Amino acid sequence: MKVGLAQLNIHVGNFRANTDKIIAAIQAAEAQGADLVVFSELSVCGYPSRDFLEFDDYISKCIEAVNEIAQHTMNVAAVVGAPARNPRPEGKDLFNAAYFLYQGKVQKVIHKTLLPTYDIFDEYRYFEPNTVFELVEFKDRKLAITICEDIWNVGNENPLYVACPMDELIKLQPDLMINLSASPFSYRQYHERMSVVRANCDRYQLPMVYVNQVGAQTELIFDGGSVVVGAGGTLAAQLPFFSEELRVVDLDDIREPAPFDLPAPVSLIYDALVLGIRDYFAKLGFKKAILGLSGGIDSALVLCLAAAALGRDNVLSVLLPSAYSSGHSVDDSLALVRNLGSPHEIIPIEEPFQSYLKTLHPFFKDLPANVAEENLQARVRGTLLMAMSNKFGYILLNTTNKSEAAVGYGTLYGDMCGGLAVLGDVYKTQVYELAHYVNRNGEVIPENIITKAPSAELRPGQKDSDSLPEYDLLDKVLYQYIELRQGPKELIVQGFEKTLVDRILRMVNMNEWKRYQAPPILRVSPKAFGMGRRMPIEGRYLG
Amino acid sequence: MKVGLAQLNIHVGNFRANTDKIIAAIQAAEAQGADLVVFSELSVCGYPSRDFLEFDDYISKCIEAVNEIAQHTMNVAAVVGAPARNPRPEGKDLFNAAYFLYQGKVQKVIHKTLLPTYDIFDEYRYFEPNTVFELVEFKDRKLAITICEDIWNVGNENPLYVACPMDELIKLQPDLMINLSASPFSYRQYHERMSVVRANCDRYQLPMVYVNQVGAQTELIFDGGSVVVGAGGTLAAQLPFFSEELRVVDLDDIREPAPFDLPAPVSLIYDALVLGIRDYFAKLGFKKAILGLSGGIDSALVLCLAAAALGRDNVLSVLLPSAYSSGHSVDDSLALVRNLGSPHEIIPIEEPFQSYLKTLHPFFKDLPANVAEENLQARVRGTLLMAMSNKFGYILLNTTNKSEAAVGYGTLYGDMCGGLAVLGDVYKTQVYELAHYVNRNGEVIPENIITKAPSAELRPGQKDSDSLPEYDLLDKVLYQYIELRQGPKELIVQGFEKTLVDRILRMVNMNEWKRYQAPPILRVSPKAFGMGRRMPIEGRYLG
Repeated sequence: MKVGLAQLNIHVGNFRANTDKIIAAIQAAEAQGADLVVFSELSVCGYPSRDFLEFDDYISKCIEAVNEIAQHTMNVAAVVGAPARNPRPEGKDLFNAAYFLYQGKVQKVIHKTLLPTYDIFDEYRYFEPNTVFELVEFKDRKLAITICEDIWNVGNENPLYVACPMDELIKLQPDLMINLSASPFSYRQYHERMSVVRANCDRYQLPMVYVNQVGAQTELIFDGGSVVVGAGGTLAAQLPFFSEELRVVDLDDIREPAPFDLPAPVSLIYDALVLGIRDYFAKLGFKKAILGLSGGIDSALVLCLAAAALGRDNVLSVLLPSAYSSGHSVDDSLALVRNLGSPHEIIPIEEPFQSYLKTLHPFFKDLPANVAEENLQARVRGTLLMAMSNKFGYILLNTTNKSEAAVGYGTLYGDMCGGLAVLGDVYKTQVYELAHYVNRNGEVIPENIITKAPSAELRPGQKDSDSLPEYDLLDKVLYQYIELRQGPKELIVQGFEKTLVDRILRMVNMNEWKRYQAPPILRVSPKAFGMGRRMPIEGRYLG
Repeated sequence: MKVGLAQLNIHVGNFRANTDKIIAAIQAAEAQGADLVVFSELSVCGYPSRDFLEFDDYISKCIEAVNEIAQHTMNVAAVVGAPARNPRPEGKDLFNAAYFLYQGKVQKVIHKTLLPTYDIFDEYRYFEPNTVFELVEFKDRKLAITICEDIWNVGNENPLYVACPMDELIKLQPDLMINLSASPFSYRQYHERMSVVRANCDRYQLPMVYVNQVGAQTELIFDGGSVVVGAGGTLAAQLPFFSEELRVVDLDDIREPAPFDLPAPVSLIYDALVLGIRDYFAKLGFKKAILGLSGGIDSALVLCLAAAALGRDNVLSVLLPSAYSSGHSVDDSLALVRNLGSPHEIIPIEEPFQSYLKTLHPFFKDLPANVAEENLQARVRGTLLMAMSNKFGYILLNTTNKSEAAVGYGTLYGDMCGGLAVLGDVYKTQVYELAHYVNRNGEVIPENIITKAPSAELRPGQKDSDSLPEYDLLDKVLYQYIELRQGPKELIVQGFEKTLVDRILRMVNMNEWKRYQAPPILRVSPKAFGMGRRMPIEGRYLG
């Protein structure tokens, strides 16, 4: 049997585009002799559709699309993902479903059993879990069709669920496992995903066709990397990361491909961020980005990523020097845009800044300058960038990194402005790694930008290290607290100093109000700020 | 048996304060001769604790607090809410639990069965559902203890759940139902809550002691209104809305109290918003608010609400007139602060605005003024308010209403600034109702503020109705779409014009990116923007 793996970039809610793309893939697979084409989870409407799923009109459009796609399955079968209505009065109104289409109609609808409801996942918000298990018979084979999380409860020491759908399906003696997924990228997700697919192939001694969504939906970046794995755990086909592909695999003639080299995490994160930027613009219908280039490493890296995503001509860098900007900030920025060949403008902030100080003088009088004046400069920059954005149709890219976002080192409505936070899930220490990666074939980011001490340049001689622990140490504590949810006791046992731990955890928890209003963040780690981390603002825990 | 209902204002994560408050209530109830004191759901840590629940350290602190509270139950029993660890390896790590404390220790732990996972609720994110049903025996009575949602699956035509915990518990022949709740306010929640409590008393022919949390946790306002209802559905005791109270009720001597008059929705919303502001400040440790007073009705109402919540001396109004401000804007604002006796300042925005125009002239050249210049004015105002806030320690109150938030009529980083959006869940038509309510005993908000045509005053002669449908009509369509999830087809069937419907729904969906960065909104309706409405930004549905 020849099976097509259709790893497509789906656009949430864009039924016309998604349906056309799915039909084109079916036709292409048929032309290559496929018997069956498999698409990703909820491929008809896109994942995550979030609360669009609460609109009956949206569900109707999903089902209309499924019926239209079915018209194109006269000679080749297809499995597409879409919600299905729950006919029972009790329970949630929908199932997360796989539609098996053949001979022009819906032959079978399979429901998802395990509904991830953690981190960025909210599936129990919408869907009723499946409780009935059946196979799909097709051309003398019996197919065990599951959806994403359904295969993730195998061989786990601390299983999230009481049920295991494949344990039920295996009793019906299937010949092949098919899984429709929407498994978002993080830098360690590939390893977990492959170990899960292999654990299933090993436990049930069956091959698996695993098709993942590709493309970014604002915060979430789906990396594709669909696979066919043989009953013995052999990797029989591997689709690319971060790009669309249709691959037809003859399951009766599996040849082991050349060994697969997984790219290094830094390269995966780089590619993920580029795709995240590209899809955000494409799906919102924008072409051009603007950003403030400070002379620091964060904005330098964002510029390089944006130029890679949108084309160097489509990213306008704006230098916004103040009286506190060092001479090298402007020189280094100019060297960078020269290296990239991308456009720039210089807009000094001194006049609006002074005009604010004058306007506020009747109130501020001779009080010493403090965070109010520092924030003012950041807000003048944000306002100038937004004015350019509004006038000429740019989207402003935010350059805050995860270390800064964590401890609230940034000005709300100032340098926290932007439509998309490119580095909001990238710690400062990872920013350096990415900068070196950008320079792997020669200097793009000037060496001086990489080696200088980080500074917000909001007062004379300011350094980040005046108000923050050194980033090496800070990032280690943040990783333990944010990614691994280690509390103060565990951190102290690990050898971190109590005063340091208390200070950092307090900064993280006290700045929830600031992060609440931050732009959406491209997620590249297993625990990013945004939809996957939901914290009380008024809570007083470690704060 | 005498039962104390302890309706307390809990602070999420503030274990010391919560524990002390719970112990004090136990001691006060004991002094009044109570046999048993009932607290609200998750009363030890506060509801919603959100992702704090993912920290093992947080759970340990909850359990330590329960054990400390138990020391004070030598002579009087108490039921408190706290998470409990799931001893089984499968499933989520926690239960949402009620701890029955007596004679100095934990006698029994009851788990929640129905885990709301919709709108603002995320309980399946954290908790495993209960599957074992048992009563608590205490002083010759058998108590059926349930937690919040557990009683909400009764007499519903479209039940959300397959299970019904009280149907299981009733088989064990209990004498009394006790429910620990954290049921947030919306203007129709009281009716639903009472009908649910009564439906249970009717179905099981048992009395119920129902204790709800009171107090606001950022977006969510818990209104209290705890009750004792007799087996026949008689309201036997009713605790106040929006304030703490300990009430001891003798269940063997139930006397029907005077008939209860439910306040009108406008009065409930007013009280809810005042509590929402007060608790946001108190729980974050702030005292003073600042806001921009435009001469329009939204900021006038926010000032009145803030003055009621924080004291008139603690709310600074700032008038920020521009060249486009009408004379009456300043006069009306001055009349309002005079009526209230609250402080104000005037900061004209012309100088910083002109300075931006000058700085941007090399780029804007002679392009016609458009939204870029309009947004600039709003951002100058936002920046001035934030500078005052940073310098003097105010929290900025946001004055955007729900109609504006819905259609994106507002400037990000401009009039969308603020720590808390007081009216973000109040439609413009409801803003008028609230303004009349404020004036119920005489003019506070000057009549001219209420009667003038709404305008952003960002260009000469501008009116909201230049770019938006009339609010009466707009709010009707928004209500159908947002609260009731009616799609375009249903709206047209209802008689709304197709072009109007398409235009409004498109505006709502296209502005998701803007709402993403809005301040937290005080929730007073069954469907507010914020944590209870989760939409894709890049989605292209009706947009």
